[in-house]
Amino acid sequence: MKRIAIISTLVILFITTKSLAQTNSIKVLNINELNNAIKNCKAGDQIIMANGVWKDVEIKFYGKGTKENPITLTAETIGKVTIEGISNLKIGGSNLIVNGLYFKNGYTPSKNVIQFKIDNKIADNCTVTQCVIEGFTQPDRDVSDHWVEFWGRHNELSHCYLTGKSNFGPTIMVRLEGNENIYNYHHITNNHFGPRPRKGGPHGETIQLGDSGTSMTPSYTLVSNNFFERCNGEIEVISNKSNFNEYRNNVFFESEGSLVLRHGNYCTIDGNVFIGNDNSTNIGGIRVINTGHWITNNYFYKIKGKEFRSALAVMNGIPKSPLNRYNQVTDVVVAYNSFIDCKSPWQFSVGSNVSQSDVLPATEIRSARPERVVVANNLIYNEVADVNPIVNYDKVDGVTFKNNIINNENKSEVKPEGLITKAVTVSKKSKALFVSNENISDVYSGFYFETITKDLFGNARTPNSNNVGAIVNPVKENAVLIDKTKFGTHWFNPNNVVKPKTINVSTSEALITALKEANAHDVISLKKGTYKLNSSVVINKAVSIVSASKNRKPELIFSSENTAFEMHPNGNLTLENIVLTGNKTQNTFTTLDKYMSKAYDLFINNVEIKNFKSVLEVSKGSFADTVSVANSSIKNCERGFMLNKETNDGGDYNAEFVIIKNTTFDNIQEVVLDYYRGGYDESTIGGNLILKNNTFTNSGKAEKDSILIKNRGIVNVEFSKNTFKNNPVKLIAILWGEKGQEPGENTIVNSGKIEVVQNLELKLMY
Amino acid sequence: MKRIAIISTLVILFITTKSLAQTNSIKVLNINELNNAIKNCKAGDQIIMANGVWKDVEIKFYGKGTKENPITLTAETIGKVTIEGISNLKIGGSNLIVNGLYFKNGYTPSKNVIQFKIDNKIADNCTVTQCVIEGFTQPDRDVSDHWVEFWGRHNELSHCYLTGKSNFGPTIMVRLEGNENIYNYHHITNNHFGPRPRKGGPHGETIQLGDSGTSMTPSYTLVSNNFFERCNGEIEVISNKSNFNEYRNNVFFESEGSLVLRHGNYCTIDGNVFIGNDNSTNIGGIRVINTGHWITNNYFYKIKGKEFRSALAVMNGIPKSPLNRYNQVTDVVVAYNSFIDCKSPWQFSVGSNVSQSDVLPATEIRSARPERVVVANNLIYNEVADVNPIVNYDKVDGVTFKNNIINNENKSEVKPEGLITKAVTVSKKSKALFVSNENISDVYSGFYFETITKDLFGNARTPNSNNVGAIVNPVKENAVLIDKTKFGTHWFNPNNVVKPKTINVSTSEALITALKEANAHDVISLKKGTYKLNSSVVINKAVSIVSASKNRKPELIFSSENTAFEMHPNGNLTLENIVLTGNKTQNTFTTLDKYMSKAYDLFINNVEIKNFKSVLEVSKGSFADTVSVANSSIKNCERGFMLNKETNDGGDYNAEFVIIKNTTFDNIQEVVLDYYRGGYDESTIGGNLILKNNTFTNSGKAEKDSILIKNRGIVNVEFSKNTFKNNPVKLIAILWGEKGQEPGENTIVNSGKIEVVQNLELKLMY
Repeated sequence: MKRIAIISTLVILFITTKSLAQTNSIKVLNINELNNAIKNCKAGDQIIMANGVWKDVEIKFYGKGTKENPITLTAETIGKVTIEGISNLKIGGSNLIVNGLYFKNGYTPSKNVIQFKIDNKIADNCTVTQCVIEGFTQPDRDVSDHWVEFWGRHNELSHCYLTGKSNFGPTIMVRLEGNENIYNYHHITNNHFGPRPRKGGPHGETIQLGDSGTSMTPSYTLVSNNFFERCNGEIEVISNKSNFNEYRNNVFFESEGSLVLRHGNYCTIDGNVFIGNDNSTNIGGIRVINTGHWITNNYFYKIKGKEFRSALAVMNGIPKSPLNRYNQVTDVVVAYNSFIDCKSPWQFSVGSNVSQSDVLPATEIRSARPERVVVANNLIYNEVADVNPIVNYDKVDGVTFKNNIINNENKSEVKPEGLITKAVTVSKKSKALFVSNENISDVYSGFYFETITKDLFGNARTPNSNNVGAIVNPVKENAVLIDKTKFGTHWFNPNNVVKPKTINVSTSEALITALKEANAHDVISLKKGTYKLNSSVVINKAVSIVSASKNRKPELIFSSENTAFEMHPNGNLTLENIVLTGNKTQNTFTTLDKYMSKAYDLFINNVEIKNFKSVLEVSKGSFADTVSVANSSIKNCERGFMLNKETNDGGDYNAEFVIIKNTTFDNIQEVVLDYYRGGYDESTIGGNLILKNNTFTNSGKAEKDSILIKNRGIVNVEFSKNTFKNNPVKLIAILWGEKGQEPGENTIVNSGKIEVVQNLELKLMY
Repeated sequence: MKRIAIISTLVILFITTKSLAQTNSIKVLNINELNNAIKNCKAGDQIIMANGVWKDVEIKFYGKGTKENPITLTAETIGKVTIEGISNLKIGGSNLIVNGLYFKNGYTPSKNVIQFKIDNKIADNCTVTQCVIEGFTQPDRDVSDHWVEFWGRHNELSHCYLTGKSNFGPTIMVRLEGNENIYNYHHITNNHFGPRPRKGGPHGETIQLGDSGTSMTPSYTLVSNNFFERCNGEIEVISNKSNFNEYRNNVFFESEGSLVLRHGNYCTIDGNVFIGNDNSTNIGGIRVINTGHWITNNYFYKIKGKEFRSALAVMNGIPKSPLNRYNQVTDVVVAYNSFIDCKSPWQFSVGSNVSQSDVLPATEIRSARPERVVVANNLIYNEVADVNPIVNYDKVDGVTFKNNIINNENKSEVKPEGLITKAVTVSKKSKALFVSNENISDVYSGFYFETITKDLFGNARTPNSNNVGAIVNPVKENAVLIDKTKFGTHWFNPNNVVKPKTINVSTSEALITALKEANAHDVISLKKGTYKLNSSVVINKAVSIVSASKNRKPELIFSSENTAFEMHPNGNLTLENIVLTGNKTQNTFTTLDKYMSKAYDLFINNVEIKNFKSVLEVSKGSFADTVSVANSSIKNCERGFMLNKETNDGGDYNAEFVIIKNTTFDNIQEVVLDYYRGGYDESTIGGNLILKNNTFTNSGKAEKDSILIKNRGIVNVEFSKNTFKNNPVKLIAILWGEKGQEPGENTIVNSGKIEVVQNLELKLMY
């Protein structure tokens, strides 16, 4: 906004005081008129797209504006011009502005929704602002694209809102191949990155700057004042892969990943806020690889992640690493950061895997410890003492700790003199914002530290007024960590949600109608009785089907072909207190064969499932965020949950969370659960399985591999307090020792055994 | 000089106009006084070292000068203060100047002669100027050191003369470990790098900037206006291993190597002159690896090297290369260079070795071709047509050629439209300087080409006045390629040579005396007759022993122990028209066991050698530049030339050139020649063997491997027109097919065979 205001002022000044530039406003009603207007546009022109739906349009906005007289492409009324269908926008030329377009209900026919390049015509000094891209995602999740792809130099994406990308590919990509695209000084500022759903495997970054092949290039992109809200696509919210980029004053809010310095060097990470919460260990902070980064004035609140996802993860490198793997960490400075109520926030030599030399080639062994790293003037504060603030996966001999303060005793294996226990007290200034009550102004002054002149809020650090941690007292009145006025558009409200309602139903017909007409999050309440359904029920939104009375379960009897429930993209089905009965010819739940563009969910509680083929069958491109089964009974089926179709071995998988608790499985002929993830790459940690308090009986007898539960390659597994009785298999399951998997107390009677394999051999992805 | 002048002016200005800075001149007579003076020095002080020899001194020059008032350490009379013995100089602090010291007759006890760091005290804004380091080389060639090692920032080596480093280690090294040492903006300017002898293997660079471990750092060192005169240490005269360095206006004169962009990116190579000569194919130009370099306005004259040593060698990279190997070449610009009378000056995909996949691991295979490379506006001119200006070792599909001009037809396999045949004529302006008679001003204007605003001589390139090639007409009067006034000190004359004389000798005693008293390059002329020598003759300088009369050979009869001639460092022995006779208890030539600090040479012409153990035995650390045998006869010895002791397999070897022509070997019991080089590394090409027109008879009968001539790992071998008769061996020799080795026409009678092995398996060095 500020930039636009300045430009406008300049334009006015220019017109009134300097020249009579011939500028026009041209209103266009359709793509032909738009093309024509673009063809003829001159510096200073404003092309106005008429309100309405622009469907299936590929816009190539080319022009040569000037700094003083840019060419603008704008909506007649901001928010009322929607780009829908199979559409995209390419920008080429100089000093162009795109303002207020709304992309929804569609996807791009090319590799990008917005691209700062038209064929060989690269954009420079062009801006996209006040635009929204909402759920403009490929029908097929496996098809890769970017929503905004930067080329050229000095381009800007500002005050935009982007949310809901669920297919392969980073949301924003900065490309650096070719000298025209380096030293780019792009600005990605003041945007709101709304929720990006879990993707299940790699390639779900929100921002990626370069790739390993261009990781030696000087980029100088500025990513500042953005709001990353639950950007859960993958383990890297931001993947830095080029040099000299700056990350300033962004807020990472409950985003399941980290700001990762994956490739490239000499980045500045200053004044960012990382907010976790008490429960999720998937929310990370900053992960450090490579050389020369400065990490200063950042504020970490309740980050509970560990290893790759810890608040500060400093990795081990591979000696003489291949270009696309892990360089050693050297010459990194971590100073003046605050870690408030984080769990073991400092983790060093993350990724050390010397113990896996048997299953990995030498070029995958991360044995090069961080060197010449300075950690100074940081504050660790815990309301409840965390006696292990430091976790080390190797020796910590290349890190110098100076004048860091912690408010409890450090009982970690690593006890540097430079981590000092001191009875610091803090005050809560606003939501999640805790500030020490007194400045500790006697700080360590390392090489070049004099350049750290400001704190998180921009207040001066001076010899007379300084403090350890991210914040110097006094803090201004009403200081907040998340200032929503800075982020996103001025016109779009991402929180427009219709209040859900309950629909009471007592017949099959009424049930079918209710499912069709329900709004997202509505609840369909079934009276007791039986409901006969001879065709599949489509689930393409969030909907609950529950019993009107807890104690009397209505029964849904299916004679449909193929499946009882057909899960579509966005399908989010909750079932409670009901009985599902098949006739052995159909599955209970089946996804579409293709175009599973978005994730689906299943929440099953207190449900009886019987007489089906498979309980769940999925397609390769499908992805369940959560499959949750609790307090239920599943019996007389051929197979259980079959999440095993993503077999590219590229780190992807078919479901993020599979949680099965307090449930009985009886007489399942083959495998009860097949949940697969292939490909070696520790940076795309995923697959989460909880299997607890269940009982399995008389199952697996027709299973050809003689394994009851398959969970190959799934990284996080909890497997305890289950009972296995009279299952004629050799193996109940194989657990992965290196990932800390071990069977808890399980009761096994006449049912094979649980095997633990320390190092799993997986196909190398790189 | 200019800088000092400016500083002096500033000092004067400062004193006269601004303050009465208390500055002192302190004359010191010895190291204690010097230490004391240093301890107490203040900004503006001048410490004057008294004339004379300063022996075994380790000077630590620490102080805090200011820009306006530096602290100077200077010679009482420039050139009259010599630092000798086991001595070195360390510099730490700010704004220090070292002026006019002369290092000779000694070596450093540490890793550096001059180091810009004292322990942890790093130098910034310090200058070493008007100094000479002459032959200050380690006694043991295997001991590694640097003569000048840069640390810190903004340091300078200017107007110095350095010559004669013969041990391991680059002459100048810029170190970049640690943030204190990056963005260093060091200046290495106006120096004269005198001859550096061939080292035989790697680690003989004249300048190295960083190493692979710091190759991602921004260095910004300027190397300009230096004269590299016969810097023959190894294949890399300059080894760039960091980023953003600039090489401007240097002259590379008959230096057997190249300016190599080994690691690191975004370097500028502008306005340099590369002068070869007609004979040597060891003299190269610029070798390109990595990304983003700009190579402009350079002038190549009679560069005849090929592959790694071609005028412009653009390499293939290793896909996803390990940090210390070969990255792909991308985004490189080669524009406005002149190639005058060079042979096949443009060589692409140099180092392509896909064919060696059998003997090399995948991480050594250079299959990644150059991409996004622009070659434009260059001039290739040949007095005698060179129809193969381009050599390609792989497809050339990633290079764009634009508006390059050549004066003959291009019959290379690669025939780009952008290499245009045109009848250009040139005029000779001065030695080696040829300029086209008319400007070809219609040039290609690529991305960012507008920044190339000057030519080789600093004349403007404008749209109205431009030219392909390095030079725009009109050229100023008296333009020269080598302006010696720019280089080196103002006081030291590197060309002070005493004229050689002839000493006539007719007795053994007189011969021994003459050898002792001779000056370098003197000739000892023997009358006919016999000379009995019962002790070894030491050769520690250049000396010739010749017959006074061609037709009557004097005979030297040895009864000395161990050896007839003992070769010392710098020993350079020419023998002509004489007979050497042993008594089977000694070798003919033997090097010292250790401290062979410098190379030795043997030139044998028309000599009869008989009745010795070995003809030549050497020690591991020894190195012969040339062993040349011609028109001679060698018989009744146990072994021939044994250049096989350097077996570290690190790419090193015991002799650079072994040339044996028109010579007969008869009754040599074991091997006739054993010449060895181990270790795989194509960048340290070496070992040169010519074996031509010789006759071998009755030899090899006691050779345990049953090979007559061993040349394992030697890269360049010519093997032709020899006669082998009645040598009872299985193999005469094994040649290395991949290096183009093949036997010429040899006559073989009853003597085993010559085998050619295509790919030799060598130990990997990295």
